[in-house]
Amino acid sequence: MRFRAGPYSEQFSSVRTIGGGRIFGMTEKFYSYPVRIYWEDTDAGGIVYHANYLRYMERARTEFLRTLGLEQRKMQLEGAPVIVVSTIEIKFVRPALLDDALTVKTRIKLLRRASIVFEQTIVRGEEIICTAQVRCASVDMKTGMPTPTDARILAAIEKYTGSPLP
Amino acid sequence: MRFRAGPYSEQFSSVRTIGGGRIFGMTEKFYSYPVRIYWEDTDAGGIVYHANYLRYMERARTEFLRTLGLEQRKMQLEGAPVIVVSTIEIKFVRPALLDDALTVKTRIKLLRRASIVFEQTIVRGEEIICTAQVRCASVDMKTGMPTPTDARILAAIEKYTGSPLP
Amino acid sequence: MRFRAGPYSEQFSSVRTIGGGRIFGMTEKFYSYPVRIYWEDTDAGGIVYHANYLRYMERARTEFLRTLGLEQRKMQLEGAPVIVVSTIEIKFVRPALLDDALTVKTRIKLLRRASIVFEQTIVRGEEIICTAQVRCASVDMKTGMPTPTDARILAAIEKYTGSPLP
Amino acid sequence: MRFRAGPYSEQFSSVRTIGGGRIFGMTEKFYSYPVRIYWEDTDAGGIVYHANYLRYMERARTEFLRTLGLEQRKMQLEGAPVIVVSTIEIKFVRPALLDDALTVKTRIKLLRRASIVFEQTIVRGEEIICTAQVRCASVDMKTGMPTPTDARILAAIEKYTGSPLP
Repeated sequence: MRFRAGPYSEQFSSVRTIGGGRIFGMTEKFYSYPVRIYWEDTDAGGIVYHANYLRYMERARTEFLRTLGLEQRKMQLEGAPVIVVSTIEIKFVRPALLDDALTVKTRIKLLRRASIVFEQTIVRGEEIICTAQVRCASVDMKTGMPTPTDARILAAIEKYTGSPLP
Repeated sequence: MRFRAGPYSEQFSSVRTIGGGRIFGMTEKFYSYPVRIYWEDTDAGGIVYHANYLRYMERARTEFLRTLGLEQRKMQLEGAPVIVVSTIEIKFVRPALLDDALTVKTRIKLLRRASIVFEQTIVRGEEIICTAQVRCASVDMKTGMPTPTDARILAAIEKYTGSPLP
Repeated sequence: MRFRAGPYSEQFSSVRTIGGGRIFGMTEKFYSYPVRIYWEDTDAGGIVYHANYLRYMERARTEFLRTLGLEQRKMQLEGAPVIVVSTIEIKFVRPALLDDALTVKTRIKLLRRASIVFEQTIVRGEEIICTAQVRCASVDMKTGMPTPTDARILAAIEKYTGSPLP
Repeated sequence: MRFRAGPYSEQFSSVRTIGGGRIFGMTEKFYSYPVRIYWEDTDAGGIVYHANYLRYMERARTEFLRTLGLEQRKMQLEGAPVIVVSTIEIKFVRPALLDDALTVKTRIKLLRRASIVFEQTIVRGEEIICTAQVRCASVDMKTGMPTPTDARILAAIEKYTGSPLP
């Protein structure tokens, strides 16, 4: 089963310039994370079950943060604010299949004091499987309220992107 | 952990009137599907893992179609076009917890010849947990190409909504 | 795809009479819990992914305890010992398919001071899909050590089975 | 939460010498497969959800077969018999946690004409997390009946173990 791929567009609606923060352009570098497709990932349609792509994207964000020196469990135990997903916009372009070797390409699209927008695209070689925009918010575990992103995360991202928040 | 809930808005971007089809308003009836939260649904943050909400929404769409007399496996075996998810926009408002009794409220927001947009909101009593807009496309299993939605599905939805496609 | 079903036997190895406790016979009543099979449950072989049966069995144990008046999250918050799975022996007899309506039949096979053995069989009508013996232990959350099962659980099970521990 | 680990024993019941085949001893080499624990793998108890260990074991068996040159999807498309899990006996020794780096150690314990028994142990460094014996059967996809294991699989395993079936 093959889908006709629409043109790949970044024009998701939810990243807007209103309100400050730092928007990163198309030239930013991607972090690549490999995913192999196993039986557990597929469904009776013979393809990867759609919700599973969100799992791969979360694995990739976790490994991306790990490469920046950030361990979520350690930070959680220290009482630091946690990063939670607040919105996802995802477009499913082509199905992935059993035994496929995919890559999750992750980059930061918008950085603000209390939120981060990731752009994540899953590819099989040159083919786009799906592409998403994932907005994460920083939340205080005790109050459940939005709170500024942990300074270590901000610093690590600013160092990675070479672009400090204004 | 509680999140401050933003105002619940239907203003997702992807439903537009351009191109015809039938847009359904806020007054349309919802189909309600119950979900109980088990250990398998939660993560180490003590809350439901975010990707799992997509599983509950898919269960609800399946049961919604079943109440309309449509069995997906039977139709698939007959070679009918399959309904696949093409885009999802989801907003996570509050976390759900172990043992929670949730309800997935599903309604059709847009009906076209080859696509259906569902609006799905998961609630715990009066509280919104998350809300999504799920665009599904009809695809020919042999060619993988978009194709008009199976006439039985269209007819069943038109009967359910009391509103035929123009 | 149909499997030749071997004779259904209870002769799993791990329930032994040595060491006391109360063994329940074949005449004990079952608790029945319904499971519907959705896309998320299946794999590219067109059948239910084998690990998922453990999820249905855990849902059934949770609902079984709930019918006895026991809420695990509430008890966990109170600091009561938790019930954890220590061993599972499972035999896969026939595959379940998309849209199947299954029933998980659960009964207590052995009750001891610090462990409970459940026998759980998943059926589709009269056909056995899989059958398992699940040994659970009571563990103190603070120390991680085995500890007597919470008295409320023991009392509820003794009342349900009509058979107190010796 | 830490569990008191019982002595690690191989004395699962289901491997018996009756009926022929080739039993492999403790000295056989293991195939090692790494698994990282992500949020999706954990539950509200703060530990890995028990059914997920079966997923890691299946990933490891798949990669083990891949190192022997066997691609399951390719063989399935050719109409070869499929390898299905028929019984699992699993003992949960210690919980694994978020961010853990685990290893699944897999070896063949018994090889027969129409079945293979794998022994699989998941470790975190020197600590055993869980250990299982997984019996797989070869099944003809058209009839659903047990059938001799594909000759390529038998040949690859005999070459790997250096020990042909009698």
